[in-house]
Parts: sequence; C-alpha cells; structure tokens
Amino acid sequence: MATVERGYTATKEQLLARLRRVEGQVRGIERMVESDRYCIDILTQISAIQAALDKVALGLLDDHARHCMHKGAETGQAEEMTTEMMAAVGRLMKRG
Amino acid sequence: MATVERGYTATKEQLLARLRRVEGQVRGIERMVESDRYCIDILTQISAIQAALDKVALGLLDDHARHCMHKGAETGQAEEMTTEMMAAVGRLMKRG
Amino acid sequence: MATVERGYTATKEQLLARLRRVEGQVRGIERMVESDRYCIDILTQISAIQAALDKVALGLLDDHARHCMHKGAETGQAEEMTTEMMAAVGRLMKRG
Amino acid sequence: MATVERGYTATKEQLLARLRRVEGQVRGIERMVESDRYCIDILTQISAIQAALDKVALGLLDDHARHCMHKGAETGQAEEMTTEMMAAVGRLMKRG
Repeated sequence: MATVERGYTATKEQLLARLRRVEGQVRGIERMVESDRYCIDILTQISAIQAALDKVALGLLDDHARHCMHKGAETGQAEEMTTEMMAAVGRLMKRG
Repeated sequence: MATVERGYTATKEQLLARLRRVEGQVRGIERMVESDRYCIDILTQISAIQAALDKVALGLLDDHARHCMHKGAETGQAEEMTTEMMAAVGRLMKRG
Repeated sequence: MATVERGYTATKEQLLARLRRVEGQVRGIERMVESDRYCIDILTQISAIQAALDKVALGLLDDHARHCMHKGAETGQAEEMTTEMMAAVGRLMKRG
Repeated sequence: MATVERGYTATKEQLLARLRRVEGQVRGIERMVESDRYCIDILTQISAIQAALDKVALGLLDDHARHCMHKGAETGQAEEMTTEMMAAVGRLMKRG
C-alpha cells in the first residue's frame, strides 16, 4: 500500500481526521485546565498534541516534496519550491 | 505586575483563552486542508500552533515549578515533583 | 542508586564524559563531510548529537532544579532561579 | 550570490567551518563544567550549539533536496531519496 511505503504521506481525508482529533485533544486540555487537573498531566497531553501536529506536518511536507515539486519541475518552479520547503522545515524545527 | 516578572506564568483564564485560540487555529487549518490551500501556508500555520502550545506548556511548567513545588516542599513531595517536571520537560523537548 | 532514581541527574564526571563523546561525534561528522559521505547519513549523526546534547541539558536542568533551587530557597533567590530556569527551558525547546 | 538565494545551502568549506566552530563550542562547555560554571550559563551555550547544528542540518537537507534529488531523478531514485529525506526531517524534529 502506497501510504505505508511512503511513510508520512496521507490522503486529504486522513489529514482532516488527524486534525479533528487534534482539535478534540485541545478541547480536552481546556477541560483539564477548567477542572484544575494536575499540571504534569496537562503537559503530557500537550506533548501528545505536538507529536500529532508533527506527524501532520511531515505528511504535508512529504506531499509537497513529491507532488508539488514534480509540478514545480514541469513549470520551472522547483528551485523556488525547494527554498520554500526548507524555510518551512526550519520553522518546524524551531517551532514557529 | 507579577505576570510580567514571572515571564511565562499565566492565570487560568489566560491559559483557557490561549487554548481556545489554539483550537480556533486548528479549525482554521482544517478549512485550509479542505479548500486545498498551498501546503507551505498550512505548514506555517502548524508552526504557529506549535509555538502557541509551547507557550502554554511553559506557562504550566512555570506554575508547576513555583506553586506545586512549594506545596511539595511542605508535604515532602518536592523530590518526586521535580522528577515529574524533568520528565515533562524531556517529553516537550522531544515533542511526545 | 541516586542516578537512577533521579532520572537525568549526572555527576560532573558523567557530564564531562558525555560532552567528550559529543565532541568526538562532531569530529566524526567533520570527517564525513570531508569524505563526501551521503548527506542523509550525516543528518542521522547530527540528530544523534542533538539527542545527546538534550540529555546533557536535561541533566543540568535537573541538577539546577534540585540543588541550585534548594540553595536559592535558603538565600531567597528561588524566585529568580525559577525564572532563569524557565527561560533556559524555553530556549532549549526553541533550540537557541 | 547563490548562497544567499538558496537560503541554507553551504559549500563544503562553509559546512566544515561551522562544524569546527561547533566542536570548539562543545570544548568550551567542557571547560565550563570543569570550572563549575553556573548551570544556566552552560544551558545557554548548549542551546547555541543546537541552533548551530540545526543550521548545518538545514544546509545539508537543502543540498540533498537540490542536488541529490536531481541526480535521483536521472537515476530513478527520487522516490527513495524523498522517503529518506522525510525520515531525516522527522528525526531532526524529534532530535534523534
């Protein structure tokens, strides 16, 4: 199956499903804060969200590297697209 | 003002406000994916969420270091609480 | 044994041993670049160094949280030391 | 100038110069540990090294994306090289 071979690539539906799960996790943290849950437990949940977002980001990057860059090669924009991709990787490594 | 001096510490209301903003940002990304927005723009938004979550996490850690540990000192749990805090920092640095 | 219980804490000798190993790893990467080794292999080594440095950093943070802050409590500097510690955690999360 | 346009790309000499500087920074930290310097100052130096290593890594990734992948396109290995690159980005984001 392509998804497995490609590692991080996800379909649009898979991406949306992951993002909806992240949205639910954020709401879960809001409830934890509201009910004064122990801060360490909340931090564990935040780390889980960061990991989930990293996975979404890697899926998008993988997609960019494969599809957008192919298209870029045809239209002569590959150079510019690589520059954009590297800037995005740099922001992800520094988180914003 | 205490908040400024303390750097990352936030009140419960400030934390909730930040989390609701993060929730809105995640929904914004869902809409971007749905409307096939350019992947690099979506990645920029993900980095912004990661940065916002890092800020929430630092606020909670700061609070843990100050208040929970004080309480821990009184109840003899400071050692254990520091161990938990370091494990949380380690997870945040590795993101999950 | 204290080291095990405390998780990340290391003696001065252990810290120095880890740092010398990191120094050797950096020299190893220099040799890889000099001999035009495949970039992905070099990146894997860089990630290994990052992980090793994170471990050193967590050891120092743990030590700071336990010993320096105790001393700070005695001398009334705990507040300031926590602020410094949180700023350091923030820099580590953003990597500089 | 190509280096500026390309963002992160560096020549072999520039990469080696950066790595030697990192090596010197690691030795500097060893001396700080040996002379019992304040842990927060050491942590600041570690963050500086992580940032320098991130820059080296981004330079190598950029180079991989541009040159290796071009070569991969010619030899039919582009798919495999993108998979390797994404795995490397994933490790860098998680730091090892």
